[in-house]
Amino acid sequence: MKNIVVQKFGGTSVASSEKIKNVAQVILKEKSKGNSVVVIVSAMGHTTDQLLKLADEVNTSPSPRELDMLLSTGECVSASLLAMALQAEGYKAVSMNAMQAQIITEKAYNCARIIDIKTDNILKHINNDEIVIITGFQGITSDNEITTLGRGGSDTSAVAVAAALNAQRCDIYTDVEGVYTTDPRIVPNATRLDEISYDEMLELARVGANVMHPRSVETAKQYNIPLRVRSSFKTDNLGTLILGVEDMEIRRTVTGVAADLSQLRIVVCDVPDVPGNAGRLFDRLAKDDISVDMIIQSYARKHTNTNDIAFTIDKKDLTKVQSIIEEIKQELGCSNILVDDNIAKISIVGAGMIDHPGIAAMMFKTLAANDINIKMISTSEIKISCLVDEKYAKDAVKELHSAFNLGCDEIAEVKGTLPE
Amino acid sequence: MKNIVVQKFGGTSVASSEKIKNVAQVILKEKSKGNSVVVIVSAMGHTTDQLLKLADEVNTSPSPRELDMLLSTGECVSASLLAMALQAEGYKAVSMNAMQAQIITEKAYNCARIIDIKTDNILKHINNDEIVIITGFQGITSDNEITTLGRGGSDTSAVAVAAALNAQRCDIYTDVEGVYTTDPRIVPNATRLDEISYDEMLELARVGANVMHPRSVETAKQYNIPLRVRSSFKTDNLGTLILGVEDMEIRRTVTGVAADLSQLRIVVCDVPDVPGNAGRLFDRLAKDDISVDMIIQSYARKHTNTNDIAFTIDKKDLTKVQSIIEEIKQELGCSNILVDDNIAKISIVGAGMIDHPGIAAMMFKTLAANDINIKMISTSEIKISCLVDEKYAKDAVKELHSAFNLGCDEIAEVKGTLPE
Repeated sequence: MKNIVVQKFGGTSVASSEKIKNVAQVILKEKSKGNSVVVIVSAMGHTTDQLLKLADEVNTSPSPRELDMLLSTGECVSASLLAMALQAEGYKAVSMNAMQAQIITEKAYNCARIIDIKTDNILKHINNDEIVIITGFQGITSDNEITTLGRGGSDTSAVAVAAALNAQRCDIYTDVEGVYTTDPRIVPNATRLDEISYDEMLELARVGANVMHPRSVETAKQYNIPLRVRSSFKTDNLGTLILGVEDMEIRRTVTGVAADLSQLRIVVCDVPDVPGNAGRLFDRLAKDDISVDMIIQSYARKHTNTNDIAFTIDKKDLTKVQSIIEEIKQELGCSNILVDDNIAKISIVGAGMIDHPGIAAMMFKTLAANDINIKMISTSEIKISCLVDEKYAKDAVKELHSAFNLGCDEIAEVKGTLPE
Repeated sequence: MKNIVVQKFGGTSVASSEKIKNVAQVILKEKSKGNSVVVIVSAMGHTTDQLLKLADEVNTSPSPRELDMLLSTGECVSASLLAMALQAEGYKAVSMNAMQAQIITEKAYNCARIIDIKTDNILKHINNDEIVIITGFQGITSDNEITTLGRGGSDTSAVAVAAALNAQRCDIYTDVEGVYTTDPRIVPNATRLDEISYDEMLELARVGANVMHPRSVETAKQYNIPLRVRSSFKTDNLGTLILGVEDMEIRRTVTGVAADLSQLRIVVCDVPDVPGNAGRLFDRLAKDDISVDMIIQSYARKHTNTNDIAFTIDKKDLTKVQSIIEEIKQELGCSNILVDDNIAKISIVGAGMIDHPGIAAMMFKTLAANDINIKMISTSEIKISCLVDEKYAKDAVKELHSAFNLGCDEIAEVKGTLPE
């Protein structure tokens, strides 16, 4: 049996009939290497937005089920058009929706998780030498209800199909040329990385390098599927290969720098230092589905026997927090709760960091040398994050990028949407 | 169990979010009478044309399978939006595609016939007091391939669902107010018929009154499902009820007059009068899938022992016929084959015609009195058709409508597309 390569094309790659024809050529290039090709496709360009607008016109809070029925049509359109474009070139191709491809999900509308892919039907078409085009972003429940996978859905479909088919690799075609050491719009000589490990990519994704949604990277890591992020338009460029750290050729100490402006900091002041208070606080937040990222608890002040607890949350959860602030104050007996939304989280990421002491020190020194005050610090095995004033975000990224020698001689060309 | 009423809404009735909200009100009006409502919906307005344009841009002759995958998305969009609009009014509603509604067809893309509807899933939702919205025009094969039903597809879906659910009746909501004695654009005082039999409607449909496709009327006749053709916008008007002749209150001698300009006449001249020649001719036409409507064979001329065979075909089949004319000439040994495409078929239809001698004579006399020459005649139990010069078509319709006293005092208001 031939090797199977899974290719995923996002909405901008199939935004028009011309672009769909271009994608057909990209697919045929892979096919010509003697591989079986399975393609996962998103909805064309702004289709999803247009459908959401229609929904809003008839119902401002449509039921999740009907929303999935509606949105799932977008990928069916692009998948069938792509199959037609391949047939126009004289190749056998077949489009499959989630029901036909048997992408089984749990029964959770708008954000379903894939629980199984029954590959019989897909394999039947592959064995018939057909190029198989599968609708991304959607699934089907065991009782034939249509679901969608939520954010990062099409990438997740691609990785899950690649895993189910035991594919050689999964190519994510997008409108950027790969993963960079940092945002090339901030640092023009940012370097495109040839390789990056799953964990590094996950950390970069979480701190704002939104090339790929963490969910799909996690799935790829789980099944050890090599992912290649590359441009649909500049196909000579091999992009960035995301793979297991054990498969990497070189392990860079620091792989990338990223800024995340999506968080805000909350400081709970003068919390009585009695056992269980911190637990009560974060329990209450979890109850309202508020995710907390960085957490710092100060040493208890001797004379008052209180401490401060600071943490960061996503800006979108601010109203949720505000509605329970009074309740928390009463429950903890604290004096005040402050909100600071002019913050940026600056992170350096690198799989080799753990073997190189002094990386953290270098980061703190670089920031200090540029008069950038650090408000909070958190670390993982492959990441160090510092909270700084929002106004210093760009400078911090530039200086750290330079301090860790991440730049290349060329100036990176930026296309499409990169992280803010 | 409550009575089930099936309602079908065409593309113009759901062409915008505003119109979808209007349709929701029409549905709720029926629901408020205590009936269970099952709705069949077409794609919004020009969706199908837009999808066909996209298809043409990537492949000028797309595969029938992929075309059905593409086109079937149109009804999924309108069905889910309509369910959302009903939910916005506080009602339980659910959209179902052909797979979920189990509308099983043969495996024939673009023009599949429904072979079964497994109603378990539909009934489950009906019994849960939900308004069920089913995508029209599409089906699913037993191996989960998506098909479409071709022309008149959504009407056929509606009638088939009504039959499967043993519905009380099937209301076809459209942009005309019912079935008229003739085209109100030609005869302004044309009368809207309160009732018409299946057979009369079939004859009228075949001769150009394109309010409903014959296929759906045939299905309704087969299962004896009363059909009501009515306006989505003027719902006070009950439209026209199509039913079995035995259920009609009155049986009019002549129900309607229609003109059909879609045919052309072919005359095969001087065919040697030997047994089997006519059979050979029409066999050859059938082989190329050319449907023949009226046929006349003249008496054999004694001195040459030849006759002429004239017949009418659909204008769309002209190129097919032209490509085999030489072959036919040789095979039959005839002298010439003439094509006349300036003809109109004028028909009068009426279930009571058979009991009233003199109707045919009245038709011929009326045409003659207006100097309209009759080129061919054909008759059935409930129809008489005359072929005349195209230029006389409107006059013929007007004069016959008047001769048979079909007009009303009011002037019919015409909306939307009525037959040419």
